[in-house]
Amino acid sequence: MLDKLKDECGVFGIYDKDGHDVALLSYFALYALQHRGQESAGIAVSEGQDIIYHKNVGLVPEVFTEGDLEKLKTGNIGIGHVRHSVKGGNLPQNTQPLVTKYKKGSMAFAHNGALINASTLREKLEEGGAIFQTTTDSEVMANLIARFSDNGFENALEKMVQNIKGSYALTIMTEDKLVGIRDPHGIRPLALGKLGNSYVLASETCAFDAIGAEYIRDVRPGEIIVISNEGLTSIQTPVPLQSCFCIFEFIYFARTDSIIDGISVYTARRDAGRILAMENPVDADMVVGVPDSGTTAALGYAEESGIPYREGLIRNRYVGRTFIKPTQAIREQSVRIKLNALERIVKGKRIVLVDDSIVRGTTSKAIVELLRLAGAKEIHMRISSPPIKYPCYFGIDTPDRDELIGAQSTVEEICENIGADSLSYLSVDGLLKTVESSGCSFCLGCFNRQYPMECE
Amino acid sequence: MLDKLKDECGVFGIYDKDGHDVALLSYFALYALQHRGQESAGIAVSEGQDIIYHKNVGLVPEVFTEGDLEKLKTGNIGIGHVRHSVKGGNLPQNTQPLVTKYKKGSMAFAHNGALINASTLREKLEEGGAIFQTTTDSEVMANLIARFSDNGFENALEKMVQNIKGSYALTIMTEDKLVGIRDPHGIRPLALGKLGNSYVLASETCAFDAIGAEYIRDVRPGEIIVISNEGLTSIQTPVPLQSCFCIFEFIYFARTDSIIDGISVYTARRDAGRILAMENPVDADMVVGVPDSGTTAALGYAEESGIPYREGLIRNRYVGRTFIKPTQAIREQSVRIKLNALERIVKGKRIVLVDDSIVRGTTSKAIVELLRLAGAKEIHMRISSPPIKYPCYFGIDTPDRDELIGAQSTVEEICENIGADSLSYLSVDGLLKTVESSGCSFCLGCFNRQYPMECE
Amino acid sequence: MLDKLKDECGVFGIYDKDGHDVALLSYFALYALQHRGQESAGIAVSEGQDIIYHKNVGLVPEVFTEGDLEKLKTGNIGIGHVRHSVKGGNLPQNTQPLVTKYKKGSMAFAHNGALINASTLREKLEEGGAIFQTTTDSEVMANLIARFSDNGFENALEKMVQNIKGSYALTIMTEDKLVGIRDPHGIRPLALGKLGNSYVLASETCAFDAIGAEYIRDVRPGEIIVISNEGLTSIQTPVPLQSCFCIFEFIYFARTDSIIDGISVYTARRDAGRILAMENPVDADMVVGVPDSGTTAALGYAEESGIPYREGLIRNRYVGRTFIKPTQAIREQSVRIKLNALERIVKGKRIVLVDDSIVRGTTSKAIVELLRLAGAKEIHMRISSPPIKYPCYFGIDTPDRDELIGAQSTVEEICENIGADSLSYLSVDGLLKTVESSGCSFCLGCFNRQYPMECE
Amino acid sequence: MLDKLKDECGVFGIYDKDGHDVALLSYFALYALQHRGQESAGIAVSEGQDIIYHKNVGLVPEVFTEGDLEKLKTGNIGIGHVRHSVKGGNLPQNTQPLVTKYKKGSMAFAHNGALINASTLREKLEEGGAIFQTTTDSEVMANLIARFSDNGFENALEKMVQNIKGSYALTIMTEDKLVGIRDPHGIRPLALGKLGNSYVLASETCAFDAIGAEYIRDVRPGEIIVISNEGLTSIQTPVPLQSCFCIFEFIYFARTDSIIDGISVYTARRDAGRILAMENPVDADMVVGVPDSGTTAALGYAEESGIPYREGLIRNRYVGRTFIKPTQAIREQSVRIKLNALERIVKGKRIVLVDDSIVRGTTSKAIVELLRLAGAKEIHMRISSPPIKYPCYFGIDTPDRDELIGAQSTVEEICENIGADSLSYLSVDGLLKTVESSGCSFCLGCFNRQYPMECE
Repeated sequence: MLDKLKDECGVFGIYDKDGHDVALLSYFALYALQHRGQESAGIAVSEGQDIIYHKNVGLVPEVFTEGDLEKLKTGNIGIGHVRHSVKGGNLPQNTQPLVTKYKKGSMAFAHNGALINASTLREKLEEGGAIFQTTTDSEVMANLIARFSDNGFENALEKMVQNIKGSYALTIMTEDKLVGIRDPHGIRPLALGKLGNSYVLASETCAFDAIGAEYIRDVRPGEIIVISNEGLTSIQTPVPLQSCFCIFEFIYFARTDSIIDGISVYTARRDAGRILAMENPVDADMVVGVPDSGTTAALGYAEESGIPYREGLIRNRYVGRTFIKPTQAIREQSVRIKLNALERIVKGKRIVLVDDSIVRGTTSKAIVELLRLAGAKEIHMRISSPPIKYPCYFGIDTPDRDELIGAQSTVEEICENIGADSLSYLSVDGLLKTVESSGCSFCLGCFNRQYPMECE
Repeated sequence: MLDKLKDECGVFGIYDKDGHDVALLSYFALYALQHRGQESAGIAVSEGQDIIYHKNVGLVPEVFTEGDLEKLKTGNIGIGHVRHSVKGGNLPQNTQPLVTKYKKGSMAFAHNGALINASTLREKLEEGGAIFQTTTDSEVMANLIARFSDNGFENALEKMVQNIKGSYALTIMTEDKLVGIRDPHGIRPLALGKLGNSYVLASETCAFDAIGAEYIRDVRPGEIIVISNEGLTSIQTPVPLQSCFCIFEFIYFARTDSIIDGISVYTARRDAGRILAMENPVDADMVVGVPDSGTTAALGYAEESGIPYREGLIRNRYVGRTFIKPTQAIREQSVRIKLNALERIVKGKRIVLVDDSIVRGTTSKAIVELLRLAGAKEIHMRISSPPIKYPCYFGIDTPDRDELIGAQSTVEEICENIGADSLSYLSVDGLLKTVESSGCSFCLGCFNRQYPMECE
Repeated sequence: MLDKLKDECGVFGIYDKDGHDVALLSYFALYALQHRGQESAGIAVSEGQDIIYHKNVGLVPEVFTEGDLEKLKTGNIGIGHVRHSVKGGNLPQNTQPLVTKYKKGSMAFAHNGALINASTLREKLEEGGAIFQTTTDSEVMANLIARFSDNGFENALEKMVQNIKGSYALTIMTEDKLVGIRDPHGIRPLALGKLGNSYVLASETCAFDAIGAEYIRDVRPGEIIVISNEGLTSIQTPVPLQSCFCIFEFIYFARTDSIIDGISVYTARRDAGRILAMENPVDADMVVGVPDSGTTAALGYAEESGIPYREGLIRNRYVGRTFIKPTQAIREQSVRIKLNALERIVKGKRIVLVDDSIVRGTTSKAIVELLRLAGAKEIHMRISSPPIKYPCYFGIDTPDRDELIGAQSTVEEICENIGADSLSYLSVDGLLKTVESSGCSFCLGCFNRQYPMECE
Repeated sequence: MLDKLKDECGVFGIYDKDGHDVALLSYFALYALQHRGQESAGIAVSEGQDIIYHKNVGLVPEVFTEGDLEKLKTGNIGIGHVRHSVKGGNLPQNTQPLVTKYKKGSMAFAHNGALINASTLREKLEEGGAIFQTTTDSEVMANLIARFSDNGFENALEKMVQNIKGSYALTIMTEDKLVGIRDPHGIRPLALGKLGNSYVLASETCAFDAIGAEYIRDVRPGEIIVISNEGLTSIQTPVPLQSCFCIFEFIYFARTDSIIDGISVYTARRDAGRILAMENPVDADMVVGVPDSGTTAALGYAEESGIPYREGLIRNRYVGRTFIKPTQAIREQSVRIKLNALERIVKGKRIVLVDDSIVRGTTSKAIVELLRLAGAKEIHMRISSPPIKYPCYFGIDTPDRDELIGAQSTVEEICENIGADSLSYLSVDGLLKTVESSGCSFCLGCFNRQYPMECE
């Protein structure tokens, strides 16, 4: 309900050597990755012979009962997936993992990202006689592997990587192998960890923390990791000169407690707030963060500026999915169900209001209104990322350009639209500083249209 | 729960030209075909552009809410399916219709029957790179059509028919066509009907009656019927000299009120009872049918023998699926939940007990016991079909041979096992007489191992 | 959906001395009584200390999962209830058993029937300060017992019986007693049985058969049976000169396989058909029963008249509750979802169509139409009970008089309305003959307005 | 799952004069009060003639579908309730509002609090013949009102207040009146607000904010507010010299954005942190709050001490109710599903860890361990309330004394038990300072055993 960009998926994988309950560990890992996708969830496991799975639409605790996990208990290899679909695509058949049989056995796929040449590949495969039962990229990739599989599974993976373009963090399993693949630009994150003698893979390290696993390193751009009874093998496929990590993972998508490509998401967000304060100072009485997305940057802003941080907005921690739509009569109060302003704190005060981003502007406008009604004297909105002006082709659900306020309006117009007294965004340079210690390059396509590959 | 052979599916199709609600008609047609499959149900519709569908495990009224049907309302072509799976195969992914995309567009499949060369075809397709997401024959057939589709859809259908072996009554739809196909031996039934200007296809004519449609004729063995905006086209593929209709449809599977291949199921069952009386007379006080499967034959037996028909057994008409398993303590009374004997009627009487078939013998044994407890003096069991001795390879879920009492024991042994005073079966010749007016040939494989094709 | 009078409830009770699973036995007994009420179901049990229960709206197998029964497993006393509510009264709070605490402990109530002085009693109790949370008679009775309880439980039961008027078959339990009560006119049925050393009570004997219990006798009009650790005690309260059993139990409500007040329901129905044939003979080719309500009487008619019985109408045995309403387009075919006519049997034939009763006439009309469409030459409707002209005040859900076709029209008018060639009803005298061997008197209020007590 | 005291309920009421959708407003208000009870929810409404309601176990969005609210749409008066039950009492029949009929009409009750003389009153009522269907205090109160109702409803309310002892914030409705009552000690909160011309009542003002209503004042201790068509009437019943507000509402129960008895919960919590810093200073590198309960006090501690505030612990914002219990294998990581430590922030640091309270100590111990594993050098735990040593009798679900670590151990022992380097609690005097601006007295029973009335 809040006006945010939406991520498309989270993936997990485990190859167990210690007798863990692979299904249960996958469950808790997906629970930790729930913020990456709330539409459907699924787990597939293998005990060496056959892949069995359970998946459905809904949140992780809704999809799995104790009985469902019980049935998956026998496995020693497992992958899991949580999903957010792009507009219109929330079809039951698109839930993942996608489990298929092919000439060499069984495979299951969990994918985070988006292929930009999926329709071309699909057409070619269809020309070759393939049929499709879903609209997922995973089904395209499964077909490629099946067709490339004559010289062995690893060879098929390599050939697949050569043929697909776009972003992908993948966990794949066969009856006896676990695979992790990250696209050559490293757009979407994928981390490798260890739990005892068992290897684990996850979109974010917070999933490792949830199950007590240790973070080892990130899967490298273009790297194919194959884990089997013989241990871990790494295949490095050719990569471009520069990586192109999605910087929005640091701005909003990832959980604050995750480490991506060596950088703490928390630190990046706090630093974004600090640099925002340097770049866009303002005389005010307090810094207020929009919970929960703006809190960390707000603390950074406060620290740097010396203006005290205050919890001027409170979030209803029980707000989940409600299917009751507020009628016209209370529509204007819709944001109130989720947020409330602390009148005693903000009344008569000059406020620096910090959020991570503005998408359509609707929530920002409602929050400014909420604070005005509570008596705030001045509201200076500060955004810890640059204006979003262009769509993402790599797995982020961006609204159409005509709904994207940053694409349609100048900063002054946006400021007027949301009713703030002033509005500033973090600069692209400022943003890059928050992640510079990684020594990596980043995709800034949604800010400046410079995508890692041709995609329009 | 009763000891019966289980059918595997029912199919339906409609090409509407009169503005009917295609989804709603499909729903009521599936409702009428519910006896052919209680595990899952589904409907797919197209309004010319795209195929949408809804399917799930459960009975027809459980699978579809009013809202589900509402979403399918826009179509003018529709197919539907009810499913009973063979042992172990009740997987969510196997629900039908199977909807796929291929190079020429979309297709949906509803299949009743069983291919005997499915695994060979699957292997070949896998060799060519195909992946499989279900264990259904429909997915094999969809792949074949996709591969054969270069010279047009009708040509692909013909090629598919040339390649597949086994039994099949199919309704297939594309965005703008409805297809009905019956295998060259005509093993499984498929009827053609008309509702106003709209054509309908169904496994049994009772589905036509449920929606007020008129029965026109049966789809012929080996016939492909294609219905499109231009009307109905019939393609006759090569057929063997003799058809081989499944005679068990007349004995038990089909609904009494259906007409299959020109023969009234009711008449065939009543005649089976009559001939049974001629072949196996006995001196008795009353004829009692096992409800509901033996009732019609029992009436025929009574008519022929002159022994009065009595309702000595009463069925609980609310018995559906109960998930509570009777414990050991009341296991022996398990059949009592479904059936009850009328002590006042049967006490001290000599009874001719008529049923359509004996599979494992467990239910027959329990019913004989029930009647003995109610005071029956003599119980002469009469079965309106020959002993089932061999498995079916064409879509009927037969138990393993070691559970099939007719395969393991002589008639005398069975009689002793179930505790009856005498036991006789209808002869194969007697059975054939009940359907002789059709002028057709029949598959008697489960009685005499003479299957229409090599399949062991 | 079919045009029938509806019963209001079924009750069950067990006092176990043999270590049976009381909850499971109650479950199977309620399953057997499901025809008496399909709106809600419930079971309460006690293991000597406390009463626990589970109840909900829905059919028996929908209300109870294996887990629900597991939780009730500890009890050695149990009562159960299935419910059909009168118009408008299907409220969740009205599900039974009603479980209450009062000064002497706990009580649970399961009631079949209707009190005619409930509102007067309720007002009196409210005057005394009572509050009510349901609209059930059971809550009134629970309050009475609580108020009368100073001189012991049995005394309170007697006083309650003295104060309530109307019909009631009750099973009541405390922590350590099971009680069965039947109203002084014996309007609603209640039978006593034994399972090993354990006593059971049920609305109909078919519940005993389902659990392997033995029918001992009916609870007598005005009898209070108390079963405790010390055994069974019977208290006979004053009764009127004549009993007044509900004759409609024999016509339609009870299951064919039940024995009520010593009379076999099956025999009464068959005899009704016989006498109907004597009273209203007609020259015809076949007798057809409306399944399932008219089947037994039709067999009796055929036997007496010598006209052969034929299954001219077939019922869809999977028709349960469907929540999809047929639209106008197929409304006229609504009865077709449930029934189908066998054209091959009825075409060109003169038919005697037998049903047990006509309420609004809508179903009869639709069936006559169905047979006409199937080519029947003549349709002579014969009803195995007299015309229903007056409402029931004793627990039967009768429609308003203006909907009751027997109250509004002459037999000739009804015949014309439903489109039959002739129509006759069984006479009241003929009906009484079917139950005369009981030596009892019966309530015929719905036919002749002579109710057992003043109630209008 | 976290080790917290649990509140027992939240109540709401509205008397609409502006044509609002009373059910929808109640829904959103209950949504805002969800933190006060997650076990069941219910809404009752009246349109002047009759009270209808919907209630069930589950969270607010689970209990109400759009259709459920639609059915309640007609009302102009409504009350709502969210419930947390004391141990063992989560029975379906105990869901509220409790709706009853009595001699003067209908009443519905929503209660937050606990009567300490409920069982005595119940016994007396049972002596008078009352029966009970629930174990709620509401049913006792409904019986009292029914018995006292001869001299009018308001008189009955006054008499009820004279008879009941304990804590209660009540919203009660009849067909045409809305009532709010707060116990004479004012133990549980209840606020009065206005939405246009319509009066509203709620446990906390955050419910007013959620629906855009304006906070007017708190209902006074011992005040009965009756709102009807004629407007608002206040009846002041006798009160003790000193009020005795529950101070734990300020420490933990109430939402940070609520105003109770004129005091901002947020301010009280921040001040608690400040005073805690003054009373228990420590040399450290950062202040970390346990999210979400300790965050506000941690900010106050940081502000006062000058030690920077850091988000060293991150909460999984999707953690709701999971029914999967972690097995032994990952039990020790159970808190990790909800919380994660930021290694990069806390490693090698001396941390002041602030939480609002310690109940059993299990969560505190797990968090200290989490921080140790993440490399924290020193952990100084600071609790923004005094040690909980005694049970609450007034509506708070406290564990048995032997589970209450504050009752069993000295502060030193607790410190050792949870593994912290130091541990200090806020003093009772310090705590009272946070609410002194109210000029009220508070119940401190759980800290010092001085309860507002005799209750042990």
